[in-house]
Amino acid sequence: MTPPLADRVLAGDPRAIARAISLIEDEDPSSGDLVRAIFGRTGRAYLIGVTGPPGAGKSTLVDRLTFELRKTGVTLGVIAVDPTSPFSGGAVLGDRLRMQAHAQDEGVFIRSMATRGHLGGLARATGDAALVLDAAGKDIIIIETVGVGQDEVDIIRTADVSIVTLVPGTGDEVQALKAGIMEIADIFVVNKSDREGADRLVSAVEANLALQTYGEDEWRPPILKTMATAGKGVAELVDAIQRFREHSARTQAARRRTRSEYRLRELISQRFMDHLERDVLAPNELTAIVDRIAERKLDPYTAASDLLARAAGGAVRR
Amino acid sequence: MTPPLADRVLAGDPRAIARAISLIEDEDPSSGDLVRAIFGRTGRAYLIGVTGPPGAGKSTLVDRLTFELRKTGVTLGVIAVDPTSPFSGGAVLGDRLRMQAHAQDEGVFIRSMATRGHLGGLARATGDAALVLDAAGKDIIIIETVGVGQDEVDIIRTADVSIVTLVPGTGDEVQALKAGIMEIADIFVVNKSDREGADRLVSAVEANLALQTYGEDEWRPPILKTMATAGKGVAELVDAIQRFREHSARTQAARRRTRSEYRLRELISQRFMDHLERDVLAPNELTAIVDRIAERKLDPYTAASDLLARAAGGAVRR
Repeated sequence: MTPPLADRVLAGDPRAIARAISLIEDEDPSSGDLVRAIFGRTGRAYLIGVTGPPGAGKSTLVDRLTFELRKTGVTLGVIAVDPTSPFSGGAVLGDRLRMQAHAQDEGVFIRSMATRGHLGGLARATGDAALVLDAAGKDIIIIETVGVGQDEVDIIRTADVSIVTLVPGTGDEVQALKAGIMEIADIFVVNKSDREGADRLVSAVEANLALQTYGEDEWRPPILKTMATAGKGVAELVDAIQRFREHSARTQAARRRTRSEYRLRELISQRFMDHLERDVLAPNELTAIVDRIAERKLDPYTAASDLLARAAGGAVRR
Repeated sequence: MTPPLADRVLAGDPRAIARAISLIEDEDPSSGDLVRAIFGRTGRAYLIGVTGPPGAGKSTLVDRLTFELRKTGVTLGVIAVDPTSPFSGGAVLGDRLRMQAHAQDEGVFIRSMATRGHLGGLARATGDAALVLDAAGKDIIIIETVGVGQDEVDIIRTADVSIVTLVPGTGDEVQALKAGIMEIADIFVVNKSDREGADRLVSAVEANLALQTYGEDEWRPPILKTMATAGKGVAELVDAIQRFREHSARTQAARRRTRSEYRLRELISQRFMDHLERDVLAPNELTAIVDRIAERKLDPYTAASDLLARAAGGAVRR
């Protein structure tokens, strides 16, 4: 008899890891029980978040970073968050290409996730997938997000170390700085640094950092130049991660706490909506309410108050 | 005596509009009552969503589009969604620069929003701000988001027309296509089309569209080339929007319904969390629960179930 999925995940079985992440991605009801079963065995892995705008070369950088970290003997899990794109079918194809590079290496597990569930689904699914890899014994987990979106930034923000990847040559350094990803970086990487404008981009980031005041013991984000395709600068990136890890030993707990709180809030919201639709409302009742809102016969705030009062037994204040 | 804020918004008073949007942005408790008061007078405005990666020139394009639409005699509201960036202070500065161009024109109201509240805060705030502009009598509302994030995509996806702006010259067309924004476009705009690679980018988008099959009556997203800084192609964009608007007259209601449902769900989730923290939990109890999760003494799924059961009177299934 095959042991239950959680046991196989805890034993590090790659097929069980893949299956577990699929359940999470599909929001299968059993995924909650799975996380429950493994949760006590998590918290050991170090979580590296990598983000940046499309075209910054994050996939290649993460691949090279994986190779470089692997040299130090650690095992790795990589989660690449791809917004669902049925149009391009991006995630599956990307996985196949990327897996090839590490196919002979059992110490590396790579997975793209393409989640578009309800609100907060992306962050929760990514977080749960990281727990699976953590429980499976991976020493380091890299989460890569395309984007400058709120969810994506929040995912990276709560990693143990947040790496923001920028790319020169679009002449839009200021736009990149505006994108709300500057303040989350523990480490900046200017990738494709052989391109024209690389030094200008480094200067622009420097100028922004210069506006901040850093205390004597405070971490000042370094700006590293890389050429991921050629592997240049990746060893320096590993060094910077290691330096940050040592520097942030005391503050890491606070960040992990934020991550826990963020996940709990999402989970509660989602479970409450499930409860409301399944246990409180009649079939199609939500549809009817939305219709009335769309027709302007009911406003969403009044509707929300009414539904809450019903679901929470009249205890909800307006 | 000054009439209440809702009345002044309905009268189209720009200062009242600005004040109302600030209340929404700050998640002020009174903002719910405000939306309640104006909601019955909304639903008339046409909502244009514009998104794309950083550096695509969206701000300039939206400015030019505003000028061009204004020529047809309509009034406009513009909401530029900026992820909060205390680091760069982007939103405020951007507003000031952009307002100057339309400063003499009372028919245009421009506002940047920089929201980073709790889960779903961005989409809700943007939606409520659009309601304010709608109630204030603006004929057309343009919402511009930087990004390829899930929230940002959802905001644009539920607009009456969704415009995806791309930019040539990074050599990363495939990355752009992967970014999950392809399938939401009703209209593609290749901006900065004087740049090298513009035709290659158009071809890449064409190739993706060619993979889809479109029914005889189905809208096939056109791909327009613009040079927003010179105003080139903007009149054609206005034409395309008008054509889509006529074509989608029947399907528009369904999209608006989705928008209503999306907002209602967010609102319920947020209100439930407020209720939980304020009425159900003891002060600092959530903190203690999160601590236990962070220490791995409690898993988040069990915690969520317990909290739901308490908040909803034991009626929640596990």
